[in-house]
Amino acid sequence: MEFIKGVKEKETIGILKGLTGENAGKTIRMEGSIHTIRDMGDVAFVILRKSEGLVQCVYEEGKTATPLSQLKEESAVRVTGVVSEESRAPHGFELRLTEIEVLSQPAEVLPIAISKWKLNTSLETKLSLRPITLRNPMERAKFRIQEGIVRGFRDFLHLEGFTEIRTPKIVARGAEGGSNVFKLDYFNKKAELGQSPQFYKQTMVGVYDRVFEVAPVFRAEKHNTTRHLNEYTSMDFEMGYIDSFEEIMEMETGMLQYTFDLLKKEYAQELKMLKTDLPDVSNIPAVRFDKAKELVAEKYDRKIKNPYDLEPEEEVLIGRYFKEEYGSDFVFVTHYPSKKRPFYAMEDPTDDRYTLSFDLLFRGLEITTGGQRIHDYETIIKKMEARGMNPEDISSYLMIFQYGMPPHGGLGIGLERLTMRLLDEANVRETTLFPRDVTRLEP
Amino acid sequence: MEFIKGVKEKETIGILKGLTGENAGKTIRMEGSIHTIRDMGDVAFVILRKSEGLVQCVYEEGKTATPLSQLKEESAVRVTGVVSEESRAPHGFELRLTEIEVLSQPAEVLPIAISKWKLNTSLETKLSLRPITLRNPMERAKFRIQEGIVRGFRDFLHLEGFTEIRTPKIVARGAEGGSNVFKLDYFNKKAELGQSPQFYKQTMVGVYDRVFEVAPVFRAEKHNTTRHLNEYTSMDFEMGYIDSFEEIMEMETGMLQYTFDLLKKEYAQELKMLKTDLPDVSNIPAVRFDKAKELVAEKYDRKIKNPYDLEPEEEVLIGRYFKEEYGSDFVFVTHYPSKKRPFYAMEDPTDDRYTLSFDLLFRGLEITTGGQRIHDYETIIKKMEARGMNPEDISSYLMIFQYGMPPHGGLGIGLERLTMRLLDEANVRETTLFPRDVTRLEP
Repeated sequence: MEFIKGVKEKETIGILKGLTGENAGKTIRMEGSIHTIRDMGDVAFVILRKSEGLVQCVYEEGKTATPLSQLKEESAVRVTGVVSEESRAPHGFELRLTEIEVLSQPAEVLPIAISKWKLNTSLETKLSLRPITLRNPMERAKFRIQEGIVRGFRDFLHLEGFTEIRTPKIVARGAEGGSNVFKLDYFNKKAELGQSPQFYKQTMVGVYDRVFEVAPVFRAEKHNTTRHLNEYTSMDFEMGYIDSFEEIMEMETGMLQYTFDLLKKEYAQELKMLKTDLPDVSNIPAVRFDKAKELVAEKYDRKIKNPYDLEPEEEVLIGRYFKEEYGSDFVFVTHYPSKKRPFYAMEDPTDDRYTLSFDLLFRGLEITTGGQRIHDYETIIKKMEARGMNPEDISSYLMIFQYGMPPHGGLGIGLERLTMRLLDEANVRETTLFPRDVTRLEP
Repeated sequence: MEFIKGVKEKETIGILKGLTGENAGKTIRMEGSIHTIRDMGDVAFVILRKSEGLVQCVYEEGKTATPLSQLKEESAVRVTGVVSEESRAPHGFELRLTEIEVLSQPAEVLPIAISKWKLNTSLETKLSLRPITLRNPMERAKFRIQEGIVRGFRDFLHLEGFTEIRTPKIVARGAEGGSNVFKLDYFNKKAELGQSPQFYKQTMVGVYDRVFEVAPVFRAEKHNTTRHLNEYTSMDFEMGYIDSFEEIMEMETGMLQYTFDLLKKEYAQELKMLKTDLPDVSNIPAVRFDKAKELVAEKYDRKIKNPYDLEPEEEVLIGRYFKEEYGSDFVFVTHYPSKKRPFYAMEDPTDDRYTLSFDLLFRGLEITTGGQRIHDYETIIKKMEARGMNPEDISSYLMIFQYGMPPHGGLGIGLERLTMRLLDEANVRETTLFPRDVTRLEP
């Protein structure tokens, strides 16, 4: 009988362990894809692409059994070579090849030069060829940063005593209501794709006090803008026993501080490639919704058209105002009008036209919506009735209030938007691996 | 201007920091839900439920301003009390109450006694009242274990150089094909819910060499069994530059070893509550599909009806065989027949009736399907054509082979099934927070 005992040490080696001064003069083996080949006549530079970065390999005629003509861009290879110092090579070392094993060959030549430092093409082309264009080092660096953001979010919340949950995406009824839901037939019953884990994460506060989830959400919004996706990743948390909704903003600020520290420590290479400076999040200003409108109306000489809504241009101006006046890339806008928030939002006890809620704007774009929720059964039932909603439609959610819930609140962060703003991209599709929008369902 | 600076220290304290010998005689504050009240006349035991466990609070008449009648099961409270040693209390300490602040009150009395050690009710009732029954300590412990499994999976793969990805769940066409897909209308185009991130994770091997994803998958299977869900969590990984599909099994074995170690270290309390012994995964036997069928046919005196398929009862017997003969709870069954595997599975070069693939059985239940994939463009096109499939239908997936892919393979693990087997539950719904099956769309 054969037994599997776990991971065996590989005889091939990664960049970080392989390309070191200690290995100078030594022979090592590596695997990778051929990113590009520069044939200089007697020698050729074969650039190997690995997950961790690029490796400059030197191919010298007659030194290996494999003819150069067998090497193609996007061939997968296993190479053996001698590590030698070369300050102009990535990581300061190159590999002088002695052996090349071709593991696989492409069937065709690439339709686009992905080995260029920056892909010089339209977003449309980039997305249509996404499976290939993501191989470009700049492109893939963005999604390593995105990975880091999710890790930061999770690790920080774990340290703060949150439990990770997994809630269903096929639901009987969406949490936000409205028309922007995808409907599907579920064994002859009407079902929807979840717009948010809202009801479930609140439910789980009754179980674990503090919970989080990172998962896809679905919005059937018909507008095709630079900041909307029809499927995106929502980073949600919900916490019980809060004294005020400021605690939620404090938790988010703490999370951003932790996450940017993690990026600085573990994703320095990607940040450098993308020329990204991490913004200062030691202090994030918080301003009331009505006050924010006044401030930008005054400073930028603009009329307030609708006192109960923020237009996208106003968000941009609020972002600009706080950058100019306080040097901050982030600003919490608090106390949104009740009529713009869902029924479960808690009203401000001192003025029930407003709620104990907030958005976080990052360089003028809303990346978070959060707030305190109603936790009292009578209060939520009355509010639903006042809004013409039928409590029976969501009785399994209302059950949590019926049988007791602590005061609580939370937020949802749009991962792709946060990444977009951090990396200073103009379109949220740039920071989505395989975006879904009104026209795009593939790849 | 107000500024948010991050998380402030709370004046309330958790169980682990609060209930210690160091604090004996000291006054501390805690928050929690009232799990149960035992009124003994002069004193009452008020059991507080917190995320980390239960706290025994002693209520003595006249010692606090709050009358006992105000305290109800599922009231959220903030209490102040003196820590005193009491060996019969959970964690070895109790809190002698001096102050009680009621933060919220339930509207109604619980319909089921969730404070019982083990919920003594049918699965049906348990699931219908899920938002409440999950508050039972045994119930919620299961999902802490599940959290631990996901953490182990992610942390191990991160250490092994895998990158975490997020791929779309609304897709033009499912990876597995067949009839068990949920269909939806996507802006007047036909779309499906992803049955697996298969195509996307393979695509991302071309980008990062090694990738993983933990996300929901959707299967519209009509059978209502104890081991099927219509939405479940798939833990997927995919790795490039493999020499054989054994490397995938080695990676999974390493992951299980790491994860069970993590559970032992960080989830000991939950394992103890659930009386769960972690199985030995230092060696996992691997047996060929055809050989496994022979072994159980022989030992359990059973006819082989269909040499190309494993019936569920055969899986159970294979599990039993390897437990009896080798003491192992796990067994890899390898070399599944080609006709039972999807088109992208790589055939065994020595016998193309079989594939370089495997399932992992855990106590007789399939919890993983994996294997090496075809990486050569011509080969996959030919195989699709032989199966009557049209390559044009999935051209954006095939693009990766056209332009070059390293040899690779991977697997998908059903999180709820793994949890079910680990905790020795009879139904996969027991280890799913809010299960979706043919009849169940709520809560």
